[in-house]
Amino acid sequence: MGVTFSSFMTVFRHLSDPELKGEIGDPTMYERFWQQAGDKSTIVIPGWQSMSYFSDAGSLCWFLEPDFAKEIIRLHKIVGNAVTEDRHIVVGTGSTQLYQAVLYALSPQDAVEPLSVVSAAPFYSSYPLITDCLKSGLYKWAGDARSFNKEGPFIELVTSPNNPDGYARQSVVNKSGGILVHDLAYYWPQYTPIISAANHDIMLFTVSKSTGHAGMRIGWALVKDEEVAKKMVKFVELNTIGVSKDSQLRAAKVLQVVISSCQYPTSLGSLFDFSAHLMEERWSLLRAAVRQSGLFTLPEFSPGSCSFLNRSFAPQPAFAWLKCQELMQDCEGFLRSNNILTRSGKHFGVSPQYVRISMLDRDENFYIFVERLSTIHLRHSIQVDERGE
Amino acid sequence: MGVTFSSFMTVFRHLSDPELKGEIGDPTMYERFWQQAGDKSTIVIPGWQSMSYFSDAGSLCWFLEPDFAKEIIRLHKIVGNAVTEDRHIVVGTGSTQLYQAVLYALSPQDAVEPLSVVSAAPFYSSYPLITDCLKSGLYKWAGDARSFNKEGPFIELVTSPNNPDGYARQSVVNKSGGILVHDLAYYWPQYTPIISAANHDIMLFTVSKSTGHAGMRIGWALVKDEEVAKKMVKFVELNTIGVSKDSQLRAAKVLQVVISSCQYPTSLGSLFDFSAHLMEERWSLLRAAVRQSGLFTLPEFSPGSCSFLNRSFAPQPAFAWLKCQELMQDCEGFLRSNNILTRSGKHFGVSPQYVRISMLDRDENFYIFVERLSTIHLRHSIQVDERGE
Repeated sequence: MGVTFSSFMTVFRHLSDPELKGEIGDPTMYERFWQQAGDKSTIVIPGWQSMSYFSDAGSLCWFLEPDFAKEIIRLHKIVGNAVTEDRHIVVGTGSTQLYQAVLYALSPQDAVEPLSVVSAAPFYSSYPLITDCLKSGLYKWAGDARSFNKEGPFIELVTSPNNPDGYARQSVVNKSGGILVHDLAYYWPQYTPIISAANHDIMLFTVSKSTGHAGMRIGWALVKDEEVAKKMVKFVELNTIGVSKDSQLRAAKVLQVVISSCQYPTSLGSLFDFSAHLMEERWSLLRAAVRQSGLFTLPEFSPGSCSFLNRSFAPQPAFAWLKCQELMQDCEGFLRSNNILTRSGKHFGVSPQYVRISMLDRDENFYIFVERLSTIHLRHSIQVDERGE
Repeated sequence: MGVTFSSFMTVFRHLSDPELKGEIGDPTMYERFWQQAGDKSTIVIPGWQSMSYFSDAGSLCWFLEPDFAKEIIRLHKIVGNAVTEDRHIVVGTGSTQLYQAVLYALSPQDAVEPLSVVSAAPFYSSYPLITDCLKSGLYKWAGDARSFNKEGPFIELVTSPNNPDGYARQSVVNKSGGILVHDLAYYWPQYTPIISAANHDIMLFTVSKSTGHAGMRIGWALVKDEEVAKKMVKFVELNTIGVSKDSQLRAAKVLQVVISSCQYPTSLGSLFDFSAHLMEERWSLLRAAVRQSGLFTLPEFSPGSCSFLNRSFAPQPAFAWLKCQELMQDCEGFLRSNNILTRSGKHFGVSPQYVRISMLDRDENFYIFVERLSTIHLRHSIQVDERGE
């Protein structure tokens, strides 16, 4: 018998960093929407176009395609999830690069010791890896924000809805001197009700989790302070001399189609209708499987009123944050032995009793996963019975 | 009167890092070839394509598009500038990202002090900036390779042909323990005769300087050692979770057209015919202007026999490395006062008597530049005469 997420198996075997495997949460669930949407989102780029390093030489972010910037503003306006007024837009090679740009921008160049970077556990497991991979003298991962009590300035990452557990979040460090960075990759109506337009100093977004185009490697930051935005631009200059123009042009087109799907919905509905419906269905199947198995628990969420979808619903996150029964200390190992690949809670700063599972895989893989999960108890009991006989 | 490279003026005023301005050498010279080449290099990408993070899950570099890898191998084979057998290909967001991936891959994670990184002056001015920007504990810029005499392991960057001066290069550090990294961005027949296929352990290339598509942000590394290649892949995972698929697909198409232009040349000739001819013409105009002015000198190159173009010619580099007369110590300032923007030799580890000038700008800008350069002596004399009267 194969292993759930069989397509991932091959990947996982070959990914250079075993620490990173399972990290990625490939959003292939969205392919179906784009297939059904047809040719409107097709991009055509002639060979002589976009050859220069420069996109908009006169602007602060000189490698940001103006058409993409325009669509970002329009999208936030129509969805109502973030304030774009009085903000600088900085484009990045995914929000991963922008996260590093923010660290660079906020760290004093002449500090005696590196700036502490914290986030409340469970936190996105790539944060510590990325922060410390080059042993920078500018910044350093300092772990769980809840237990942080070092004197002096620090950066607190607020991921809301949170990766991995899906809860809405606010700053938790109860002392001054902190600079907040809001990772809002999942603040879209398919995952959580849009309560109000986020209005923070530094906000990170990505196409991977909003439209599903992970392969584009495009993210954007909305930044209030001009000096911070300039230093972020400087980082992207040094790191990659700008961001792929081809992907920015394609992202502009894709956002245009998303916006148009909201303004003039077809029978398919908007991208958000489509994906919110799919997430609702998947969470319902997952909760049924967990009930049937009886070995796990899932986070419980309170409903909220979504100003975009005009209805009240509970969060339906991009990841399932599964907790195993007390007696199974290594939930990842237990599920692996049941042919389900997950990522242990220990990478997220908490107990291995937890695991994270992507909810954004293709239909076929998702259905196999819930099917297997639901029968674990059964098979487990049978094995126990057989041994007992 | 305007300033030469007027389009760059705007850029330079707004680039966040004044240290980086002039660094870039925008290869817009190539636009004309691609305009004339027509629709063959046009790429069409439907909205549902390339959504996943993964390009080739089973391969060492899981984010490398197989079609792009295939064209890289075909191109090196037809041009004969690099050995691809027994090499791993790692794709990067430009060769700038691959340079950082190499540093990460070659630095021991547990070393007591950072690994020294050196290159013979004059060296590419971005090397020290990129190497030291995060104050990494893994590696550190250690300056001119010719004066390097520290004990222990080190990395030596060999850029050949060299940026900024265009000379062919070999390792200069005369001690053991060094790991060589070959930056071969300019080892193409439009810039220098292809004498033999480069056969080094780590070789970096980029589309920016080979086809002129700087806006794609695509580079590639040919890497002999599997472990080094794996660690480079790990860096790109951590830094940007892979490389834009859209740009890789477009790069594959563009390389296909380049290869086809070599195999079945039209009246336009191959990309290399076109650009080698243009570089020859430009260097001839530049040398005439320098002679007419009488205030500067340029590097002199010996001709070599090019196995690809089947003729002998002298290097005609992508940058002019101009030396001012002894009495003008600040060549950059002097040229700026004559409305020519350049980059001072001090950024390249040598005297400010030198400046670097891009030879890859659009025709109109290049012609204004040589026109101005040729008349500096004249105008300078007139001013002296006027003051004398």
